Amino acid sequence: MIDILTFWLDWFGVAVFAITGALAASRKQMDLVGFILLGTVTGIGGGSVRDALLGNVPVFWVADPRYLLTCCIVSSVTFFLAHIPQSRYALLLRLDAVGLALFAVIGAETALLAGADPVVAIAMGVVTATFGGIIRDVLAGESPAVLRQEIYVTAALLGASLFVTLQSFGVERSIALFVGFAAALALRLGALQWH
Amino acid sequence: MIDILTFWLDWFGVAVFAITGALAASRKQMDLVGFILLGTVTGIGGGSVRDALLGNVPVFWVADPRYLLTCCIVSSVTFFLAHIPQSRYALLLRLDAVGLALFAVIGAETALLAGADPVVAIAMGVVTATFGGIIRDVLAGESPAVLRQEIYVTAALLGASLFVTLQSFGVERSIALFVGFAAALALRLGALQWH
Amino acid sequence: MIDILTFWLDWFGVAVFAITGALAASRKQMDLVGFILLGTVTGIGGGSVRDALLGNVPVFWVADPRYLLTCCIVSSVTFFLAHIPQSRYALLLRLDAVGLALFAVIGAETALLAGADPVVAIAMGVVTATFGGIIRDVLAGESPAVLRQEIYVTAALLGASLFVTLQSFGVERSIALFVGFAAALALRLGALQWH
Repeated sequence: MIDILTFWLDWFGVAVFAITGALAASRKQMDLVGFILLGTVTGIGGGSVRDALLGNVPVFWVADPRYLLTCCIVSSVTFFLAHIPQSRYALLLRLDAVGLALFAVIGAETALLAGADPVVAIAMGVVTATFGGIIRDVLAGESPAVLRQEIYVTAALLGASLFVTLQSFGVERSIALFVGFAAALALRLGALQWH
Repeated sequence: MIDILTFWLDWFGVAVFAITGALAASRKQMDLVGFILLGTVTGIGGGSVRDALLGNVPVFWVADPRYLLTCCIVSSVTFFLAHIPQSRYALLLRLDAVGLALFAVIGAETALLAGADPVVAIAMGVVTATFGGIIRDVLAGESPAVLRQEIYVTAALLGASLFVTLQSFGVERSIALFVGFAAALALRLGALQWH
Repeated sequence: MIDILTFWLDWFGVAVFAITGALAASRKQMDLVGFILLGTVTGIGGGSVRDALLGNVPVFWVADPRYLLTCCIVSSVTFFLAHIPQSRYALLLRLDAVGLALFAVIGAETALLAGADPVVAIAMGVVTATFGGIIRDVLAGESPAVLRQEIYVTAALLGASLFVTLQSFGVERSIALFVGFAAALALRLGALQWH
């Protein structure tokens, strides 16, 4: 049960971040291979850095090619739909918020399962949530959004901290995942709304 | 036999990419230590990322100091020759194409030998071929060439895919390596020619 | 004894680099979370890259949350003091020199203890000393200082080389650490002075 839920949340986070990478490729007017590369790197970058730091190697997408295939398919579909012009950037920001919230709790849980201290687990949630986007922005030649938009990292920090705290108080895992996810998403979407 | 061929191809790819890093240092008018740092990081960067993701640690150049020494020597020689002004950039692009084609097949083979799925092996070929150049461009303060020149990643993808496909059909290893290498090199040099 | 000395030197290097990251956040007018993120990444970045390459995983700060807590505290204190305007950049450069010299010898020793060849150990000293600052500059959207200031890498190279050479001649460890550290610091501070 645990592995299936984790797989689906992880998979969904990868897919959502891959779309944001492909949308960034769209803004840079790249071709199909550029979409796939930037989408894939964004989708799996945060989890790869987390796994390399934790010593969870080979990293998660090496053991299961479905992650790579998902990134390729999602990026390609985005390529054929992204000419629909309006509000690509607004969409990117909202999808990015969903991926951010998902990866904050999933990343923290992965670290806890690897035996990490709660403080380290929170940091790993932030790493997982932010490094895919950081790599995307650096490769696209843009200044990393993560440090220009302060509520971005704060939202990941909130989600990961809530999840780790609730878990340490013995709250049921799926509830802790949901509360952490919802809080991070609400804070980030709120920041986008009121900014 | 296998290890000797792999070592020489790997070594040659490292040397060629080190020259491209040193030529980038030349364009930025760095001094000798800058040449060595940028040359070394470019030469061993792609393989280091690949090994860290695969869990092949310590990474390849830690176990064998000849890689580092090669990068230092090649970068230093480039430093003393690079004042010869004409066509440094054209040379950089052509050497980069050779390194790209070599690392695409070597990186894919390294992943296959580590037990990775064919799809993952192709991705590792692309990672090995492109990340040295990406790190070089980021350190030199330039927008990564890999995403501006789409036939670049496509060439690595072609070479790695051909090699993995031929291997899975039981084609002899050195032939598969050569075909993948030649196809990637031809596509990339062709793109440079006709662009 | 050895572990205690290493811990304190390592810890001090992390704290000093965290301040330089927080000062960079200050120059970019980030908020508290931005200070903490940039300070933490700068403090632990170089050692994380070193450990991932050496296969020392989980990396050093995963096993001991005091490193992360130190980065958070140091970055937060810097946040509340950094409005004191004068000479933030001059301070950043001098603290960075101390961290550079510390990490050059500590990084080389960590590699030697992991069984690396002397040449590889020197390279790991340079990696540990420079990659925190490189990541800081890339995240802050600046061209990496490490390659603009050539005496920077040279100082790390000098400190790591001296330490490794003295160790290989059987000089007592704490003396070798001190000589390597002092030489790197003197060269870097001298370069700042006379530039």
